[in-house]
Amino acid sequence: MSGEHTNTRTEKDAMGPVDVPADRLWGAQTQRSIGNFPIGVDRFRWGRPVIRALGILKKAAAEANGELGELPADKVRLIVQAAQEVIDGRLDGEFPLVVWQTGSGTQTNMNANEVIANRAIQLAGGVVGSKKPVNPNDDVNHSQSSNDTFPTVMYVAAVEGIAHALLPAARRLRDVLAEKQTRYADIVMIGRTHLQDATPLTVGQLISGWVAQLDHGLAAVGAGMEGLFNLAIGGTAVGTGLNADPRFGDLTAANIARETGFPFVSAANKFAALSAHDEMVVASGAVRALAGALMKIANDVRFYACGPRAGFAELRIPENEPGSSIMPGKINPTQCEALTMVCVQVFGNDHAVAFAGSQGNFQLNVYKPVMLHNLLESALLLADACNAFTDHCAIGIEPNIDRINENLDNSLMLVTALNPHIGYEKSAEIALSAHREGLSLRAAALQLGYVTDEEFNRWVRPEDMVGPLKK
Amino acid sequence: MSGEHTNTRTEKDAMGPVDVPADRLWGAQTQRSIGNFPIGVDRFRWGRPVIRALGILKKAAAEANGELGELPADKVRLIVQAAQEVIDGRLDGEFPLVVWQTGSGTQTNMNANEVIANRAIQLAGGVVGSKKPVNPNDDVNHSQSSNDTFPTVMYVAAVEGIAHALLPAARRLRDVLAEKQTRYADIVMIGRTHLQDATPLTVGQLISGWVAQLDHGLAAVGAGMEGLFNLAIGGTAVGTGLNADPRFGDLTAANIARETGFPFVSAANKFAALSAHDEMVVASGAVRALAGALMKIANDVRFYACGPRAGFAELRIPENEPGSSIMPGKINPTQCEALTMVCVQVFGNDHAVAFAGSQGNFQLNVYKPVMLHNLLESALLLADACNAFTDHCAIGIEPNIDRINENLDNSLMLVTALNPHIGYEKSAEIALSAHREGLSLRAAALQLGYVTDEEFNRWVRPEDMVGPLKK
Amino acid sequence: MSGEHTNTRTEKDAMGPVDVPADRLWGAQTQRSIGNFPIGVDRFRWGRPVIRALGILKKAAAEANGELGELPADKVRLIVQAAQEVIDGRLDGEFPLVVWQTGSGTQTNMNANEVIANRAIQLAGGVVGSKKPVNPNDDVNHSQSSNDTFPTVMYVAAVEGIAHALLPAARRLRDVLAEKQTRYADIVMIGRTHLQDATPLTVGQLISGWVAQLDHGLAAVGAGMEGLFNLAIGGTAVGTGLNADPRFGDLTAANIARETGFPFVSAANKFAALSAHDEMVVASGAVRALAGALMKIANDVRFYACGPRAGFAELRIPENEPGSSIMPGKINPTQCEALTMVCVQVFGNDHAVAFAGSQGNFQLNVYKPVMLHNLLESALLLADACNAFTDHCAIGIEPNIDRINENLDNSLMLVTALNPHIGYEKSAEIALSAHREGLSLRAAALQLGYVTDEEFNRWVRPEDMVGPLKK
Amino acid sequence: MSGEHTNTRTEKDAMGPVDVPADRLWGAQTQRSIGNFPIGVDRFRWGRPVIRALGILKKAAAEANGELGELPADKVRLIVQAAQEVIDGRLDGEFPLVVWQTGSGTQTNMNANEVIANRAIQLAGGVVGSKKPVNPNDDVNHSQSSNDTFPTVMYVAAVEGIAHALLPAARRLRDVLAEKQTRYADIVMIGRTHLQDATPLTVGQLISGWVAQLDHGLAAVGAGMEGLFNLAIGGTAVGTGLNADPRFGDLTAANIARETGFPFVSAANKFAALSAHDEMVVASGAVRALAGALMKIANDVRFYACGPRAGFAELRIPENEPGSSIMPGKINPTQCEALTMVCVQVFGNDHAVAFAGSQGNFQLNVYKPVMLHNLLESALLLADACNAFTDHCAIGIEPNIDRINENLDNSLMLVTALNPHIGYEKSAEIALSAHREGLSLRAAALQLGYVTDEEFNRWVRPEDMVGPLKK
Repeated sequence: MSGEHTNTRTEKDAMGPVDVPADRLWGAQTQRSIGNFPIGVDRFRWGRPVIRALGILKKAAAEANGELGELPADKVRLIVQAAQEVIDGRLDGEFPLVVWQTGSGTQTNMNANEVIANRAIQLAGGVVGSKKPVNPNDDVNHSQSSNDTFPTVMYVAAVEGIAHALLPAARRLRDVLAEKQTRYADIVMIGRTHLQDATPLTVGQLISGWVAQLDHGLAAVGAGMEGLFNLAIGGTAVGTGLNADPRFGDLTAANIARETGFPFVSAANKFAALSAHDEMVVASGAVRALAGALMKIANDVRFYACGPRAGFAELRIPENEPGSSIMPGKINPTQCEALTMVCVQVFGNDHAVAFAGSQGNFQLNVYKPVMLHNLLESALLLADACNAFTDHCAIGIEPNIDRINENLDNSLMLVTALNPHIGYEKSAEIALSAHREGLSLRAAALQLGYVTDEEFNRWVRPEDMVGPLKK
Repeated sequence: MSGEHTNTRTEKDAMGPVDVPADRLWGAQTQRSIGNFPIGVDRFRWGRPVIRALGILKKAAAEANGELGELPADKVRLIVQAAQEVIDGRLDGEFPLVVWQTGSGTQTNMNANEVIANRAIQLAGGVVGSKKPVNPNDDVNHSQSSNDTFPTVMYVAAVEGIAHALLPAARRLRDVLAEKQTRYADIVMIGRTHLQDATPLTVGQLISGWVAQLDHGLAAVGAGMEGLFNLAIGGTAVGTGLNADPRFGDLTAANIARETGFPFVSAANKFAALSAHDEMVVASGAVRALAGALMKIANDVRFYACGPRAGFAELRIPENEPGSSIMPGKINPTQCEALTMVCVQVFGNDHAVAFAGSQGNFQLNVYKPVMLHNLLESALLLADACNAFTDHCAIGIEPNIDRINENLDNSLMLVTALNPHIGYEKSAEIALSAHREGLSLRAAALQLGYVTDEEFNRWVRPEDMVGPLKK
Repeated sequence: MSGEHTNTRTEKDAMGPVDVPADRLWGAQTQRSIGNFPIGVDRFRWGRPVIRALGILKKAAAEANGELGELPADKVRLIVQAAQEVIDGRLDGEFPLVVWQTGSGTQTNMNANEVIANRAIQLAGGVVGSKKPVNPNDDVNHSQSSNDTFPTVMYVAAVEGIAHALLPAARRLRDVLAEKQTRYADIVMIGRTHLQDATPLTVGQLISGWVAQLDHGLAAVGAGMEGLFNLAIGGTAVGTGLNADPRFGDLTAANIARETGFPFVSAANKFAALSAHDEMVVASGAVRALAGALMKIANDVRFYACGPRAGFAELRIPENEPGSSIMPGKINPTQCEALTMVCVQVFGNDHAVAFAGSQGNFQLNVYKPVMLHNLLESALLLADACNAFTDHCAIGIEPNIDRINENLDNSLMLVTALNPHIGYEKSAEIALSAHREGLSLRAAALQLGYVTDEEFNRWVRPEDMVGPLKK
Repeated sequence: MSGEHTNTRTEKDAMGPVDVPADRLWGAQTQRSIGNFPIGVDRFRWGRPVIRALGILKKAAAEANGELGELPADKVRLIVQAAQEVIDGRLDGEFPLVVWQTGSGTQTNMNANEVIANRAIQLAGGVVGSKKPVNPNDDVNHSQSSNDTFPTVMYVAAVEGIAHALLPAARRLRDVLAEKQTRYADIVMIGRTHLQDATPLTVGQLISGWVAQLDHGLAAVGAGMEGLFNLAIGGTAVGTGLNADPRFGDLTAANIARETGFPFVSAANKFAALSAHDEMVVASGAVRALAGALMKIANDVRFYACGPRAGFAELRIPENEPGSSIMPGKINPTQCEALTMVCVQVFGNDHAVAFAGSQGNFQLNVYKPVMLHNLLESALLLADACNAFTDHCAIGIEPNIDRINENLDNSLMLVTALNPHIGYEKSAEIALSAHREGLSLRAAALQLGYVTDEEFNRWVRPEDMVGPLKK
């Protein structure tokens, strides 16, 4: 990235001067990171949610410093204005760093400090790189350390990703399915346990199971997210809050809460807040549970849609692209495939989060960026996949009534309905005869002379076997 | 197991007669399972918690059937008495089956039905195997199916394992550490971030971080367990509750709640309750988070105890066994090793639970036994490991004051305390001089003449750098 | 365990005296471990394969010490005789320790030293516990350290578990399937991609895919096991081989090779051999790949057997236990369920192995026991599950010809066979007509008048669409 | 992406017409996929390695079709020319699709067919979108199906990623370390087992363990990659090779082998080749083992560099960025942190690969894209991280001689060297005295009068305790 630029200016940090592209707002430490970490550069730059969270934090911190008299009002105003531009996405190009850097996220914190300082300097009419009137360390990072800011950013970005992307997407899928649960409440279909024919249920009941799984998953993710409301801010370098006013953490967290609408607070114990991110592990575990539920649902949908002739074929799904150039009715369940692949990815990501979370030492866990990356990716991918699945598959699921009835009518399981009328022995004889001779239950029953056609109609009623219906 | 017996009696099931050891109470289906699933027989028989839960369920179900008039009082009484013996562990030898069987746990449900029926028959003075006066299917399994009983047993056993073993063990460790947090609240030690010397904190603060992690983990496990209160009972074969009184599920769950003291209820949606066990996945994820916290704590303990000479050596731990036949002071942190190995196992078990949980199809998830096995093993192993760690390590952790002070005194980080007095430039010069010449800060400061000995004593006070202490 | 004994004798180690049950051969360090590690005691004692490997190692080491003149011939003879009893399983009850102990396996190494020494003393007519004429440390453990003996035992036990249990079991399944591949080479069935009807293949071809997966898996496990032939023996405490003759490692490994029949050697680099067990991770990864293949195969079997009426039902599997008390033909694929549950467990175990393998520090990885436990459990469980699946399921798999033909005849996919004769346009018209009106292809073709019945028979021949058959 | 374009042309597929941006070469099916799968669009487009492999395959297939007389020479020439541009990266912008699509990768195969056809049409002076003279299906995809082309692309891309990126990067790190192994072969340092002081070894021996781990890892990855040489090409839709000349697979594989320099062949069993990707699972497992080794190495480096004052501080690493604004010598091991984070990611990715690999059904595994994505990402990320670690850390590792000697001199472990001279009892007494009084061994030995200073010098020589040195 830096190689493309011919015009440069000089920025300085504690190690000395560094050439930086003249048209960029970042400074020395960002530039060093570009040079030192050429790892996965194409795919692993921090995206919008993290950059936005950096802006939110720096704005909130500046306001807190202002409230505490730590920074003069004009500096606060400049920093807040620049940070707002970061929040609004107007400076995304100034964040070139990737996930694979210092494990504390220090360089991304410095990237934000440098960019906001230089942008504030621009706003003040100063010289970019001069650190006047706004210094990236002394002013933008005032009362802060990478060790408490980056985990703060982690939690803010993760909460927003979960709450603004994943939960609405999963809820929308849930609602679309809930509507179908009601609509198809009266359609009786054969049940299957151990993949074998079993007693009947309704299509509505089938779908109610999916809706319940989503309800549970939504609740789990909502609950699993709550730990993330406890922010590290205020702990500074090792958790003692050295160099920060004791009120700074609470004030900054309150400002973040106001900005985001979530009940963020400063964590009760800062030593845990810097050296462990068990809250991320819990949240990731909840997202994984939701992914597991979606995997079951998507698998059901594609198996029920299996056909057109030689499978269950009890549900129809939308045809979104050509499935076969010559065979009509071959509708590949591609949305199920995309969704289950994303679920598998979420399982992998969760593995990385939990592994990383266990590897803290002493006063710092230095796997922060990889934890943030994976949890956020899981939330956003799963959100996208839910939305695509809802729009291009779930919304168009409908029962294939003919096939449902055919499978139900063929079932031997319905014989249980005859028990009260002709006894277990004769019922079993009918079923065995049907099985051996490949007959329908009705045909076998009539052939054996144990019931009349009218009696069969009256007694063998699958709709009486599905329990009390709740629409 | 069956091969040892020469005397047999004949039991029957739907497939016909089977020879069963004459002195055993199990019946035909249990015997078939012994023959069909010779997998991991030495290590994977269900243990006390699962057998107890089977007894609890069967007792509660019999009582519910009695309340509903589904079974006569004398049968209920006999079943309850036999089930109580199962609860009390008096019939553990009658449960020979292993985890690796039917994925619905059917055979273990039948094992319970057969044993309780035959024991009830004994109590009634009948002939074992006669199915009179108590029939394993029609009476003991009345209003039930394996598909709703086994998941009920899963959740009851998992809740008891977590609540009665894991939570108390983790809480005890937490309390032992909390006492040390208070006791060592005044001892200042050097901090470490990125494994590098950093600003100081107190031993109490260090330990407070561990206590906070355990508090969070305990809370997460407590919350993660709540989904398990929703029992499948009442769903029978596919979730419709066919062949059961609609009140049966609620009544049985209430009886289980009374028996166990936990707020069990019949799950709102039985289709999800049979075909998915996302609640197990959520609970396992929470246990994993606790294991991750324990891993961080155990790693800290062993690194802080690293020595006796060439490591940090800031904490002392109990010497439980010979560490070296000749070198005194080589105290291997074996309890940390056992605990972290268990944590790794919990991660592996959790993986199995989550994978299994995603693999349901249609009306049944047939990975029930493997899910139960792994979650329960995680809970019990982690409980044992916490207890051993508490008793043989945590309880004896104490600071090595000499070493703590030596490391603190040698630290260059304390130079920051001079900033307000002599300015950043001279402070940095002192630190650089100390670093280059291998001097203490004090020596370098005096050598450079920037402070007097008395000033150094007055200004460089680590105890002023650790923030407000909370004991 | 120790609590049950009233008669005790006193054993000593470097920390002093310990009371040991009088009738046991173990000594002080084993007894301390019993007291210090009450973790998972019921289920996690080392089993036959590990105890056998301990015996093999101690015998091989004694012989090497004899060859090198490090131990006198009579001591060697006594140790070898006692170790042989350990190999033969006659002293299994003397190994009470569990997986969850010192992470180097020190205590299990000492357990073997103590038992072999005391048994040798018995053989020599000495006093158990006297350490005369055979000392557990100076004689049985001569030239050794736990740090090189335990990993040696790990690799020997793992190789034997894989080579003697897993590979034969998987190969037997492969052979049973290969026979069916040949037998059913001519039966044409419908293919399915994306779970949707596709062009046909033969049952033999279907099964050939499973056989090929097993061949690949067997080859992968065979190759993945090779790293385990490199033993740590000879490295002693940190890898330098201090206190051992430089030839000791090679000689001992050669003795182990002779005893086991596997090409064990002393590892080229002992520092890696003590501080890392990447060979275990590689081997576990290969076993996992085989488990993944078995999961696909077992899933295919149960889905193809799905029925009896409302599923694919193209394969029949043995009926091993009652599937339904009234519905004939409900044959639950319980062996598939047990096998896939074991596969899931293997995935979990593999996770633990790989995690543990990454956690070494400096000169030692202290996750040795958990790595051994999981890899060995995976090998043995998967072996048992393969055997059960072979005997109770695979061996009885047979095609349901009627259903296969029915599904094939109903397929719309066969229309592609008409293309060369009547052109793409008319072929597509036939398929669309069949799909819309629910007709067979033949009926639609005749109805539209594009082919005669005789032509249809001649042109639409699924057996011509399956490619060159290899039996 | 499509929304930005106002000028469009109409492309058609089996489902009908689609508007496509006029300036793009892709066609209808690519455009549908853009609309149907808006999932992770920013980060999950296929990159260079996959696009290159698509070009290689299409070129090789066209050549094979030419050799077989299946396509006329002029079409072959056009397709080869267009495919060469794909190989060379000149058409990367024409590949807008993401990982999350049809599980067979159909749409990416069609993307390649469409782009190559339209580019070939351009080269022939035809009208883009006219399908003349080159048709994406009939010509570019001739003798192929997505079901055999996409897995072919998977294996080609994975092999190139591993062989051209990962292996050289890991080998370079290995070579840099091997040079240090030799250079520091004579420097004796204290050993550590269980994190406790142990007998000494040399810095060269320490590093030799890392080099050995890398050698093992390189060998494992090389061996684990071999299964990927077996390509699915020739299997077409279900593995039977329907619609392809039986020689097509072999010829195409040979052309791919010539193009890439790797020994690719057409897989012996195409049914396994389409329905399972166990070779990817094996390869991923091997990459994971290498990542585990790197994790151990990076952890060692950062712990050995722990300091500057209060840690081991036995190794020095390069200072790449400011570690502390005031404390000299605080060199955060940021390259270790980046590398271990990547290792954690590789573990997560591997989890996804193995999970996905187990989920095939019938004739197709529909998790192909997610498997490719994760294995390739692991290879490329780990390559980048190895390179950064080599260049910015490993290359500058050097021993801190003063500290190494200080730790060694302080060690009590060296007392073992006195055993042969003054006996175990007196040696132990010296060690205990040193430990209790905080003395050096020498001081304690002299104080007790058991040795003279000269004797101590002569007898206690760590360099004699490290075994035969191999440089």
